[in-house]
Amino acid sequence: MRGLKLKVYFFGKKIENPADFALTKPSQNSVALTYELAHDPKYSDLMTAKSHLTGETINRFTHIPQNSDDLVKKVKMLRLLGQKTGSCFQRCVGMDALITLSSLTYEMDQKLGTQYYTRFNEYLKHVQREDLVCNGAMTDVKGDRSLSPSQQPDQDMYVRVVEKRKDGIVVRGAKAHQTGAINSHEIIAMPTATMREDDRDYAVSFSTPSDAEGILHIIGRQASDTRRLEGGEIDVGNPKYGAAGHEALVVFDDVFVPWERVFMCGEYEFSGSFVERFASYHRQNYGGCKTGVGDVLIGAAATIAEYNGVPNASHVRDKLTEMVHLNETMYACGLACSYEGYRLPSGTYFVNPLLANSTKHNVTRFPFEMARLAMDIAGGLIATLPSEKDLKDPQIGKYVEKYLKGNASIPTEDRIRMMRLIENMVLGVGMIESLHGAGSPQAQRITILRHADLEAKKKLSKDLAGIKEKKS
Amino acid sequence: MRGLKLKVYFFGKKIENPADFALTKPSQNSVALTYELAHDPKYSDLMTAKSHLTGETINRFTHIPQNSDDLVKKVKMLRLLGQKTGSCFQRCVGMDALITLSSLTYEMDQKLGTQYYTRFNEYLKHVQREDLVCNGAMTDVKGDRSLSPSQQPDQDMYVRVVEKRKDGIVVRGAKAHQTGAINSHEIIAMPTATMREDDRDYAVSFSTPSDAEGILHIIGRQASDTRRLEGGEIDVGNPKYGAAGHEALVVFDDVFVPWERVFMCGEYEFSGSFVERFASYHRQNYGGCKTGVGDVLIGAAATIAEYNGVPNASHVRDKLTEMVHLNETMYACGLACSYEGYRLPSGTYFVNPLLANSTKHNVTRFPFEMARLAMDIAGGLIATLPSEKDLKDPQIGKYVEKYLKGNASIPTEDRIRMMRLIENMVLGVGMIESLHGAGSPQAQRITILRHADLEAKKKLSKDLAGIKEKKS
Amino acid sequence: MRGLKLKVYFFGKKIENPADFALTKPSQNSVALTYELAHDPKYSDLMTAKSHLTGETINRFTHIPQNSDDLVKKVKMLRLLGQKTGSCFQRCVGMDALITLSSLTYEMDQKLGTQYYTRFNEYLKHVQREDLVCNGAMTDVKGDRSLSPSQQPDQDMYVRVVEKRKDGIVVRGAKAHQTGAINSHEIIAMPTATMREDDRDYAVSFSTPSDAEGILHIIGRQASDTRRLEGGEIDVGNPKYGAAGHEALVVFDDVFVPWERVFMCGEYEFSGSFVERFASYHRQNYGGCKTGVGDVLIGAAATIAEYNGVPNASHVRDKLTEMVHLNETMYACGLACSYEGYRLPSGTYFVNPLLANSTKHNVTRFPFEMARLAMDIAGGLIATLPSEKDLKDPQIGKYVEKYLKGNASIPTEDRIRMMRLIENMVLGVGMIESLHGAGSPQAQRITILRHADLEAKKKLSKDLAGIKEKKS
Amino acid sequence: MRGLKLKVYFFGKKIENPADFALTKPSQNSVALTYELAHDPKYSDLMTAKSHLTGETINRFTHIPQNSDDLVKKVKMLRLLGQKTGSCFQRCVGMDALITLSSLTYEMDQKLGTQYYTRFNEYLKHVQREDLVCNGAMTDVKGDRSLSPSQQPDQDMYVRVVEKRKDGIVVRGAKAHQTGAINSHEIIAMPTATMREDDRDYAVSFSTPSDAEGILHIIGRQASDTRRLEGGEIDVGNPKYGAAGHEALVVFDDVFVPWERVFMCGEYEFSGSFVERFASYHRQNYGGCKTGVGDVLIGAAATIAEYNGVPNASHVRDKLTEMVHLNETMYACGLACSYEGYRLPSGTYFVNPLLANSTKHNVTRFPFEMARLAMDIAGGLIATLPSEKDLKDPQIGKYVEKYLKGNASIPTEDRIRMMRLIENMVLGVGMIESLHGAGSPQAQRITILRHADLEAKKKLSKDLAGIKEKKS
Repeated sequence: MRGLKLKVYFFGKKIENPADFALTKPSQNSVALTYELAHDPKYSDLMTAKSHLTGETINRFTHIPQNSDDLVKKVKMLRLLGQKTGSCFQRCVGMDALITLSSLTYEMDQKLGTQYYTRFNEYLKHVQREDLVCNGAMTDVKGDRSLSPSQQPDQDMYVRVVEKRKDGIVVRGAKAHQTGAINSHEIIAMPTATMREDDRDYAVSFSTPSDAEGILHIIGRQASDTRRLEGGEIDVGNPKYGAAGHEALVVFDDVFVPWERVFMCGEYEFSGSFVERFASYHRQNYGGCKTGVGDVLIGAAATIAEYNGVPNASHVRDKLTEMVHLNETMYACGLACSYEGYRLPSGTYFVNPLLANSTKHNVTRFPFEMARLAMDIAGGLIATLPSEKDLKDPQIGKYVEKYLKGNASIPTEDRIRMMRLIENMVLGVGMIESLHGAGSPQAQRITILRHADLEAKKKLSKDLAGIKEKKS
Repeated sequence: MRGLKLKVYFFGKKIENPADFALTKPSQNSVALTYELAHDPKYSDLMTAKSHLTGETINRFTHIPQNSDDLVKKVKMLRLLGQKTGSCFQRCVGMDALITLSSLTYEMDQKLGTQYYTRFNEYLKHVQREDLVCNGAMTDVKGDRSLSPSQQPDQDMYVRVVEKRKDGIVVRGAKAHQTGAINSHEIIAMPTATMREDDRDYAVSFSTPSDAEGILHIIGRQASDTRRLEGGEIDVGNPKYGAAGHEALVVFDDVFVPWERVFMCGEYEFSGSFVERFASYHRQNYGGCKTGVGDVLIGAAATIAEYNGVPNASHVRDKLTEMVHLNETMYACGLACSYEGYRLPSGTYFVNPLLANSTKHNVTRFPFEMARLAMDIAGGLIATLPSEKDLKDPQIGKYVEKYLKGNASIPTEDRIRMMRLIENMVLGVGMIESLHGAGSPQAQRITILRHADLEAKKKLSKDLAGIKEKKS
Repeated sequence: MRGLKLKVYFFGKKIENPADFALTKPSQNSVALTYELAHDPKYSDLMTAKSHLTGETINRFTHIPQNSDDLVKKVKMLRLLGQKTGSCFQRCVGMDALITLSSLTYEMDQKLGTQYYTRFNEYLKHVQREDLVCNGAMTDVKGDRSLSPSQQPDQDMYVRVVEKRKDGIVVRGAKAHQTGAINSHEIIAMPTATMREDDRDYAVSFSTPSDAEGILHIIGRQASDTRRLEGGEIDVGNPKYGAAGHEALVVFDDVFVPWERVFMCGEYEFSGSFVERFASYHRQNYGGCKTGVGDVLIGAAATIAEYNGVPNASHVRDKLTEMVHLNETMYACGLACSYEGYRLPSGTYFVNPLLANSTKHNVTRFPFEMARLAMDIAGGLIATLPSEKDLKDPQIGKYVEKYLKGNASIPTEDRIRMMRLIENMVLGVGMIESLHGAGSPQAQRITILRHADLEAKKKLSKDLAGIKEKKS
Repeated sequence: MRGLKLKVYFFGKKIENPADFALTKPSQNSVALTYELAHDPKYSDLMTAKSHLTGETINRFTHIPQNSDDLVKKVKMLRLLGQKTGSCFQRCVGMDALITLSSLTYEMDQKLGTQYYTRFNEYLKHVQREDLVCNGAMTDVKGDRSLSPSQQPDQDMYVRVVEKRKDGIVVRGAKAHQTGAINSHEIIAMPTATMREDDRDYAVSFSTPSDAEGILHIIGRQASDTRRLEGGEIDVGNPKYGAAGHEALVVFDDVFVPWERVFMCGEYEFSGSFVERFASYHRQNYGGCKTGVGDVLIGAAATIAEYNGVPNASHVRDKLTEMVHLNETMYACGLACSYEGYRLPSGTYFVNPLLANSTKHNVTRFPFEMARLAMDIAGGLIATLPSEKDLKDPQIGKYVEKYLKGNASIPTEDRIRMMRLIENMVLGVGMIESLHGAGSPQAQRITILRHADLEAKKKLSKDLAGIKEKKS
């Protein structure tokens, strides 16, 4: 990453060496783990795959699923990383962008005679070979939510083509809440909504190095983000990975993209499929990563119960059971939509979209109840703990040490560390990710109803009730 | 079935020809459908399988799963039947009894040197060849729940061996809520709890024809059961299948069982595995049958919204979406525990027990919310509809016809039929089956926690919080 | 009641002596209890009041609340009756009709110069003096829900004035699910929706003896209704009160009503207030009656846990606690909307409508969870119990007696009785009443939002966020 | 406050002028508002009362309720302050300590012949006259939760009397999460659990100036606490009041208390009543303050929907309705337990403890669902917003300004402000307060079951089921 010349801003300042910035360092550690585990033989089955283009062994984050098993391993890989980081590790958005383009470009070419598929495959080979992290950039800033892209008073509220040149296009706009933006080599932009003909200029997909001329990253704030700048580690909760990725507002201030990196340009009639396909893949993921994070939270709740001295209270056991049940239900959904995947014309495998949307929809609910239960088990101290500096202060520290002792066999610091981990998970950005990542709840509901096949179900009920259907 | 000489009682009377008894006829129709669909080429992939013993094509209800695909098809077959009957079709309990014995007898033989496995396979061939319906009889009447079998004041509260003879054993006791009892050729009895040495006589499993000497069936009452005896069909709601199976108290009044049909006799140390294994298979099922029934209920709710004139009200669409989401979540769990199945020593495939228990646990909750939503959409009329006899009465009928009209293009009778179907489903035995079938909620919670591997999760959280584990 | 010459139909037959009809006898017993308890000094404070018109002591069911305390006592009286009957006792609908008319007629007179108020007070004195049961008849059959009264293809889908004569009016139409219809002396009809000018003929309110010429009652079916006709008592669950009232479709086949009994006739602009006011009073009630019924269900669940031998299992205690908590929350809402009541221009006290609607809205949810928990505690037997006739059969009875014994110190019959009570409550009409009585959930949501004063809340949030409101 | 010489620590440093410390300034502003509003004639009815001791007009936060109306006004005052601050305003804990002592000291004197009541009344007059803020200090640090005070390895885990002197006592220990500690003139210490004879030294209640010798305050960390130190105001969300109070660990390092300020000293048999009584009063409060805060959150959600351009989307309206419904349910419970209050022997009024515990129990649930809904309506931006410094940066600001515009008529800054307010409320200490303030959920469940009178409910169910109770 160090080679990249990203323009990154935080707190009104340009960050000179993003790779060394303490605020985003934990998120970088998470991304780094996607490389490290791929080289650990213990995890290679999940973390790597064989490229269908080159036959080479590649990082699964750059792989296009060729069968249901690949889809399942995607979910299991994400759970593993969730368990190891307790955080968002950011790299899945770009993976889903690649997967979506692998089938969409094929279908556009088939239908419209375009040449995107070959172009995309060349790009994909590059990504696989270099093992690049891609930032999948879908969500536009959207302006007034009740207006379509071309109806907005400010025409730049969705990323659009402002100029078509011989050698490429120039794009303008901004993508909001870009997870892991500054840990990415590449940005893959995608349309964020179903477009109509008037919105043709907004139906655009392309890739670009994340440090291209005209791109700037403004890092968003998270709850308790500056704890990472304080110098200690306990108060961060999850000091290595931060219990969070980072998000940026990525501005495209007239960025040039050569034609070799353009994968959609004006084909508005495919924008709806684009969004739904990407969203379904991405909703699948939440049955993996969030259950991995859930495992950490369950473990933390079980540990703190022990540190508090009440690991066997029946209500504590019951709450832990509930957490496990909810977590496994999310996982089961992630697995099911994967196992029930099917082949698209390009050969890429697609998840079952009904089940994938139900997967994510549960993730907009269950982690909140799990968080509530973890807070319940932990006790009020997670909201009132003194700082690491107080704990380590020569004068005050002894009081903190003495009075925050729980189970006598456990060091006070360990108890505080575990509470801080929980605090960070339940009052952090992860909760909002659970709701809005891969689309807000209402987006899933619309998709669920669309795939529900109510007519077939109505027929079943009429048959049983003895109602003859009229011919029509 | 007509050949059987069952001793069946209902309402204080012996039923002379159970096969013609109107009260249980609908449940018989459901069982019959498990045969009919197996002969329909459209469904043969789901409904039949190849016997691993004989290579013959057999009904899947008599098949022992040899791989994950078999487990998945089991769930899909059950959803299909749930869709076609809107009811319990009863035959899965016996299927799970066979599947459980196929591995348990093998393991007992391996460990204890017994000879059950060969014996069981002979029996299984017989069942497969004759395509028999088996009643899997696990649940004992249990007496005082706080006491073990041998501690009960009345020693017969769990089925037990009262005599061992040269040619076989004599058993006494009773099995409660035996679904589909009088539609079964065979009864396969199983132990219902983990036994200790003192309970040795209760650790018994065997099969017997359901009309053996000493067996009697007392059919339990269900809500609105006698509507089936009234002669009409509308008020039954689901006239062909009854929206319910039937349950019986099956009494074993000193029944003789020859040794060839005894599959466990005193091996108390295997009783715990027996129960957990059977329960996991059976809990898997609920992700199939209950989602099929759920499809019918969703279809009925969507239909009645249309009949009432409000199919597009946003709150109605939203409630239908919620029903679909809950239903698919249950299904996803049923699929996931199947796909994630694994091979047992005997070659039989086992479901993932953690996910299977989560499957059933969701079924103890979601159908209740689905029922509530269906009632909400249907409107108060489902509780106050006049009878079919009023509708068809020469004098009164015209008022019913006139005033219960909804959407003018729909016959009043159709609207009433659909409401009756819903009434029958939401105020029927199905709700209690969802709770208690395959074990009560608490049984699943205990199993979930046992399989949760909290220690591994605690380790994950300690690693992230920076806590060093002490050696111990 | 015996003096009334009601035309009552059930099951396609005219019921000759409704007062002796076994199917509706339990509902009659509930109504009778509203008289009996009023004469019991222990309950007279709740059950009686002093008439604001005559100063006489009257049954509270005929009283117009003159202060908050009267509103509170209304709720407490209803809880008491719910506890004593475990059922719907039907008399509150007419009470709310009287209360609503006491203020509405006054306001119509003030605004429009009509003379309804005096007329109504004369009628009220008659009701109070004779201690009559009134059937408050609001819900029209409604036809196509998407059309207004006058838009319906059949003009009779809402009760309407078909003729105005010198001495009175002639009305036609039908009122659906009329609770306690055949136990009522009087019917008080009310409009069921906000009417516009075109619907003027449907804006009608009047009272009539329930046996007036042209009125017929068709009794609706309930789950397990005919158990009351079987001659026994155990299977009814709640043999005296039936765990249910009854509902009828009441047809007005050109019924004449003299002007002295007409309280609204064409004043469509008051129809909206009529509905909202009546609905708010009626929604208040559910915080009383349903918590009384809830007390019975909690008691039954606690008792059956004891009969099963597990009264102290921690999960059972926890479920009972949850039931109590939900029940008391409903009660608290019923009390709060009463205590927070205020005086209307006529002197009648009105409940706080926001809190009254929240009261009922909780009743559309919590009783379902309470029912689920009660079923959970009871166990599967509630769905599979043999009939009373089997229990008492000389041949079969001994098996039922022996094998359905739980805790050895409790007679089997008592255990069965308690299970039947639960079955009847959780799979009965009460569930649907909880949802749709006093209006379906969506009706409450609309009212809640209307009374929420979002603008004031928006102002609070802007003040705190430091946002200056623009002048407008 | 400035006169106080508090020893306050944060972040390993002694805070020299706590009254000017930016981190706790917002919490101070909230407390200040309890004075300001008391002088605003618009609110004087709620904010002031007449002292039952002196007849003087006093701040209601120092008043002892003399009737139900006082209890109701307590709840309404708290809702008002919640609305005005969107925060915890801290002063209610001390109020409840005073109220509890007003009856407990009386009852101790009656039973044990002690002289606490007069002593307490003298103190109360002082508090009322000076209009002091009292910190009600109940929660001990507790050490190992499975051990009683005297069983702890470190005897100081509960505050205890280490020396009795002629002129007073010396106490040692620490009280955890003391809300508003450094904004208080006085500390009133109370026992935190039911004590047995061995714990006699821990059964101690007293008051002391909060700057007495030996007392030190270590301020706990909250999510995003240091945003208040950054110099701006937008990122704080609620810049004036902070959307939070503050909590401190208050250490009593051998503090001397003169006898005139000792209100319990060894009377362990009253410790259980002390805790339950205080807890019930304090649980009552949550039906006030948290609904006031809820009003702010609802208003913020409604405002942000408008700013996003979708105020009328049906799913948004529906979510707002749900928030209102949940909020009013909590309020209704708070009101009901107050209106149903009753007189204790001392003349102090007590809340209905069953309803008060249900009040708080709902607060451990509903605010979480409300927060989830608010996050849902707000959209993902609340987790990814750039900082105020970015917004105002001369170079970067224009991009933030341009791209975070929603509804074109609303300044971007206002949209950001509203999102920050929501972020701060839903990812802040308020959530944990909702769970653990006034005792954790399990504490309420135990109390609810204790007051449920299951025996009376069992009797009701037996009567209806026709079961004769045995004499015993």
